[in-house]
Amino acid sequence: FRLALIQLQVSTIKSDNLQRACRMVKEASAKGAKVVALPECFNSPYGTHYFKEYAEKIPGETTQKLSEVAKECNVYLVGGSIPEEDGGKLYNTCTVFGPDGAMLTKHRKIHLFDINVPGKIQFKESETLSPGNTFSMFDTPYCRVGLGICYDMRFAELAQIYGQKGCQLLVYPGAFNLTTGPAHWELLQRGRALDNQVYVATASPARDENASYVAWGHSTVVNPW
Amino acid sequence: FRLALIQLQVSTIKSDNLQRACRMVKEASAKGAKVVALPECFNSPYGTHYFKEYAEKIPGETTQKLSEVAKECNVYLVGGSIPEEDGGKLYNTCTVFGPDGAMLTKHRKIHLFDINVPGKIQFKESETLSPGNTFSMFDTPYCRVGLGICYDMRFAELAQIYGQKGCQLLVYPGAFNLTTGPAHWELLQRGRALDNQVYVATASPARDENASYVAWGHSTVVNPW
Repeated sequence: FRLALIQLQVSTIKSDNLQRACRMVKEASAKGAKVVALPECFNSPYGTHYFKEYAEKIPGETTQKLSEVAKECNVYLVGGSIPEEDGGKLYNTCTVFGPDGAMLTKHRKIHLFDINVPGKIQFKESETLSPGNTFSMFDTPYCRVGLGICYDMRFAELAQIYGQKGCQLLVYPGAFNLTTGPAHWELLQRGRALDNQVYVATASPARDENASYVAWGHSTVVNPW
Repeated sequence: FRLALIQLQVSTIKSDNLQRACRMVKEASAKGAKVVALPECFNSPYGTHYFKEYAEKIPGETTQKLSEVAKECNVYLVGGSIPEEDGGKLYNTCTVFGPDGAMLTKHRKIHLFDINVPGKIQFKESETLSPGNTFSMFDTPYCRVGLGICYDMRFAELAQIYGQKGCQLLVYPGAFNLTTGPAHWELLQRGRALDNQVYVATASPARDENASYVAWGHSTVVNPW
């Protein structure tokens, strides 16, 4: 089956991001994609000070749009991630919609990205976000798919468990940066794929040198060989 | 501390292999090495039809020599591996000697290398070898070291357990080949190092295009970053 990874340009205008995302899902579908993935934080700039402002309930405006476009295009849509508000807490959350528009699963990023590489990058998701605590899988006619978000990929156990549970494809929407990207982005995907004999796919926001957080890009698919 | 990896040329003449190995241990020690590693199957050509002929008891001729040279050079010596005979069974076994000449541990290859890539390589260690079933670690003044042999590196769990048990260096004597070498040798080492935040070192026999089994070479040390 054909998998599409949308390396979306993400701006500070949520409605534009949503519109662009939906347009590209339609384009991917028109080209034969049956499963489509958006990047981490695709409706909001990535940054702890943005999360509260852009956060939504689920269901909400963004996920409603994802549901509609999944149904319209008859695809499985891995909705990258958005800042989610629930019970006064914020999460970094990936929703998945089936070809009938129903939400199949919801993954909250488990491993929050707290990093301090002096002189290179400092970032602390846990300042504003709370972690998820569930495995998240869904079935398609093609294979079972396991979900993680970005830094979740850094931890081997999640992928191992998904592999043991029969997943043949792992999808990680992720926004690595110009420090962790060159160091680990490709290595982690290839390692997870080889060790667990699964396909691994990542979808990153497009690189924007003017953003406060510059994403690595390099959305990738790796085979298990 | 300085670690030496000996990418030994291995011939069909056991006494030559032993002599050459000991000479190079002395050379490494003279250059300041405190831990020295020999490659997999360093006293015998690598191949199922050689194992029985070259196999020894432990202790035996080869390990006696390793003990002596470790003591003479005042180094920790990871003795690559040799075909070991015990109770009528053959094993692919790594012995480790301390600076006092005492054997610190013995690792029998757990994951036997049975491979069949049509048109590229076919090899079945389990035709003649039996698998080990123990974790093998030893302590030095520098760090705790975990041991695997070659195909053991292909399995993430061994390295994970060593990491959890406090190893900061994993040593894998290994003889990958011209099919699995380019595909997995570097990736596995870098993955094990990053995932477990340990140093990983491999020692391969030198490549010999005329051997029945052509080793990949590329002995390597990887840091955890």
